[in-house]
Amino acid sequence: MRQRDFRGKSLSMEKGRLEAFSDGVIAIIITIMVLELKVEEAHGADFAALSHVWNPFLAYVLSFIYIGIYWNNHHHMLQAAERSNGAILWANLHLLFWLSLVPFATAWMGENQFAAAPVALYGAVLLMAAIAYWMLQGTIIREHGRDSLLAQAMGRDLKGKLSPLCYIAGIGLSFVNPWISCGLYVLVALIWLVPDARIERLLKGRK
Amino acid sequence: MRQRDFRGKSLSMEKGRLEAFSDGVIAIIITIMVLELKVEEAHGADFAALSHVWNPFLAYVLSFIYIGIYWNNHHHMLQAAERSNGAILWANLHLLFWLSLVPFATAWMGENQFAAAPVALYGAVLLMAAIAYWMLQGTIIREHGRDSLLAQAMGRDLKGKLSPLCYIAGIGLSFVNPWISCGLYVLVALIWLVPDARIERLLKGRK
Amino acid sequence: MRQRDFRGKSLSMEKGRLEAFSDGVIAIIITIMVLELKVEEAHGADFAALSHVWNPFLAYVLSFIYIGIYWNNHHHMLQAAERSNGAILWANLHLLFWLSLVPFATAWMGENQFAAAPVALYGAVLLMAAIAYWMLQGTIIREHGRDSLLAQAMGRDLKGKLSPLCYIAGIGLSFVNPWISCGLYVLVALIWLVPDARIERLLKGRK
Amino acid sequence: MRQRDFRGKSLSMEKGRLEAFSDGVIAIIITIMVLELKVEEAHGADFAALSHVWNPFLAYVLSFIYIGIYWNNHHHMLQAAERSNGAILWANLHLLFWLSLVPFATAWMGENQFAAAPVALYGAVLLMAAIAYWMLQGTIIREHGRDSLLAQAMGRDLKGKLSPLCYIAGIGLSFVNPWISCGLYVLVALIWLVPDARIERLLKGRK
Repeated sequence: MRQRDFRGKSLSMEKGRLEAFSDGVIAIIITIMVLELKVEEAHGADFAALSHVWNPFLAYVLSFIYIGIYWNNHHHMLQAAERSNGAILWANLHLLFWLSLVPFATAWMGENQFAAAPVALYGAVLLMAAIAYWMLQGTIIREHGRDSLLAQAMGRDLKGKLSPLCYIAGIGLSFVNPWISCGLYVLVALIWLVPDARIERLLKGRK
Repeated sequence: MRQRDFRGKSLSMEKGRLEAFSDGVIAIIITIMVLELKVEEAHGADFAALSHVWNPFLAYVLSFIYIGIYWNNHHHMLQAAERSNGAILWANLHLLFWLSLVPFATAWMGENQFAAAPVALYGAVLLMAAIAYWMLQGTIIREHGRDSLLAQAMGRDLKGKLSPLCYIAGIGLSFVNPWISCGLYVLVALIWLVPDARIERLLKGRK
Repeated sequence: MRQRDFRGKSLSMEKGRLEAFSDGVIAIIITIMVLELKVEEAHGADFAALSHVWNPFLAYVLSFIYIGIYWNNHHHMLQAAERSNGAILWANLHLLFWLSLVPFATAWMGENQFAAAPVALYGAVLLMAAIAYWMLQGTIIREHGRDSLLAQAMGRDLKGKLSPLCYIAGIGLSFVNPWISCGLYVLVALIWLVPDARIERLLKGRK
Repeated sequence: MRQRDFRGKSLSMEKGRLEAFSDGVIAIIITIMVLELKVEEAHGADFAALSHVWNPFLAYVLSFIYIGIYWNNHHHMLQAAERSNGAILWANLHLLFWLSLVPFATAWMGENQFAAAPVALYGAVLLMAAIAYWMLQGTIIREHGRDSLLAQAMGRDLKGKLSPLCYIAGIGLSFVNPWISCGLYVLVALIWLVPDARIERLLKGRK
């Protein structure tokens, strides 16, 4: 009896530190992006000078929302999870790696007025992050079992299947017209902004 | 009975991670601002060289106090809150977004010797952050109910109503004399520095 | 009885978030200092190129130790503290403000080969941080009462009284010979590196 | 009985804050490295421009994995630890110091196309971090006793003994052919990526 308690506590602490580390990295990613809004590029002290940071600003807004979505979903997924292990730690780091490239892709895209190649790279980073998230989800489900609450909560995961297709389309279309790609990226963000009620509903059902 | 405990724990953990993430982002915002005090601008190794970073330093002090006030109030508001939900998470991210623009606005204002346009932009960012804070407060109150301790604690919220008016006045007056605007921003900071005793008093009353 | 439990929990959570925020800010301060070791200044790819970052590196080592000492002492002081309040939050932010200037002072000193004015400024920032720490300590003791464990633990606080004198001497002597000042700063760091056994001993005695 | 509870809680909180601070610093280190992928170096908006950041990117990937390994192992070691003390706090800061130099070493290596001296410096930083980790491990074991679970879990520690030898070989061989050194660094990373099952297995045995 005591052993189970200890184990439970130990494993939930482990999950806690995983969350804390992820929160730290995601908080830093979401914040350092703003460093790309460089004052030096706003030559002068009038509003016209601000126009030079308009494109980086738009790119920043989009990326802020994406990182916010990832934090939100990561938060819900780990809330449903009950424990962690080595494979989950590394699947999580893999996700953080791709998210850490978002600031670079954002800056390159923003500084080059949403040109084709940067827009394609931005889509590629989003695609890799989506794949990494999907892998992390799979690793967590494997740990908890196919019949677990978590596995059920994930359900058919339509959003998760649609997003990569949009990214791939965005990458391909960026050489036709980068604004179509950006439209697709915005569309995916909007889809995810709708609260992910799946897990919340199930958790409430259980309680 | 046990279910209620579990639910309470789960929801307070959720609140805990919201606080932790906000703390991380606010801690980074308050600290990266200091990177705008650039050593390269202090050409030379005498005190005269420091005069080049005097205006950025003043702007840094003001923004440090503002971010400190936001952290403090955020801290008190969430302490009184008992649970979180998806809408609160996004209202919170919305607040963090506007706060994340404070370092840019601070740097632009500091580097341009408190010129009109940067001072107006600084006020606009403060205004948007105040609106975002007010929205977050409303979202939390909606979750807890109009009769909750939190809703009572917010009370008439004179400060919260006065601040946006000062920011709007500051934005408008920046083209007359930016120092009047700065005076208004300092005034609002001073008003908030007076400890927000409302919540503390009510919490003590309850206990 | 239950009320007291609730209050204790609420107040220790408040202390917990104060610690978490301070940890975040201190962790960022200690880490962004390394950004001043700029690769661009190491022109070339041989070890001779590294000599250009030698002085910034020495300044970094000293500041890393100082920030480490502050984290360590802050950690012990808050461990002995039992609760927090508004005045403590602001006294803590005041300390973090002065610590946040350490990276700038470190960079200015390192880039200018430990010249007189930067060495004096470095000492001034250390002096202000020491005063802020002393004010924070006083605010915490006031909250806990003169007879509290914390107040006794602080005792005569010889180190805390000696350090500001060394900083003041360092500031004054920097215009005679900055290396004497640096020697004094190193001396103070060494004094503090000796583990602050006061609180630890008392805590053990109580238990 | 109550005293033991209090002590246990107090000491595990102390450990908790040590973990939180380390998590913060490591999260910042792993994230600021990405700032070295500078958009300005990707002159232009086509994929050819990206080739200028290819070497920094490779160096970033390697360092991300190394910092991830350190976080992972640090995590497991502290999970097995039951309490902290002043010596452990400083041994931990010593490790964080060397890890904080990884971004600089990474950037210098990446910007200079893996030239001899930067590759040697990179190995030297890894070597010092390994030594610091070994010292931290020793300090923790000393606190817990030679017969503790932790001491047994560390066992013969083949990986820990092999890694420094590889780093030393890498440093020496960098002046023959830096790519051999890089191969050695990659090899060590791969060895560590295999999950450190020692502690996990023992913990499971105990439970």
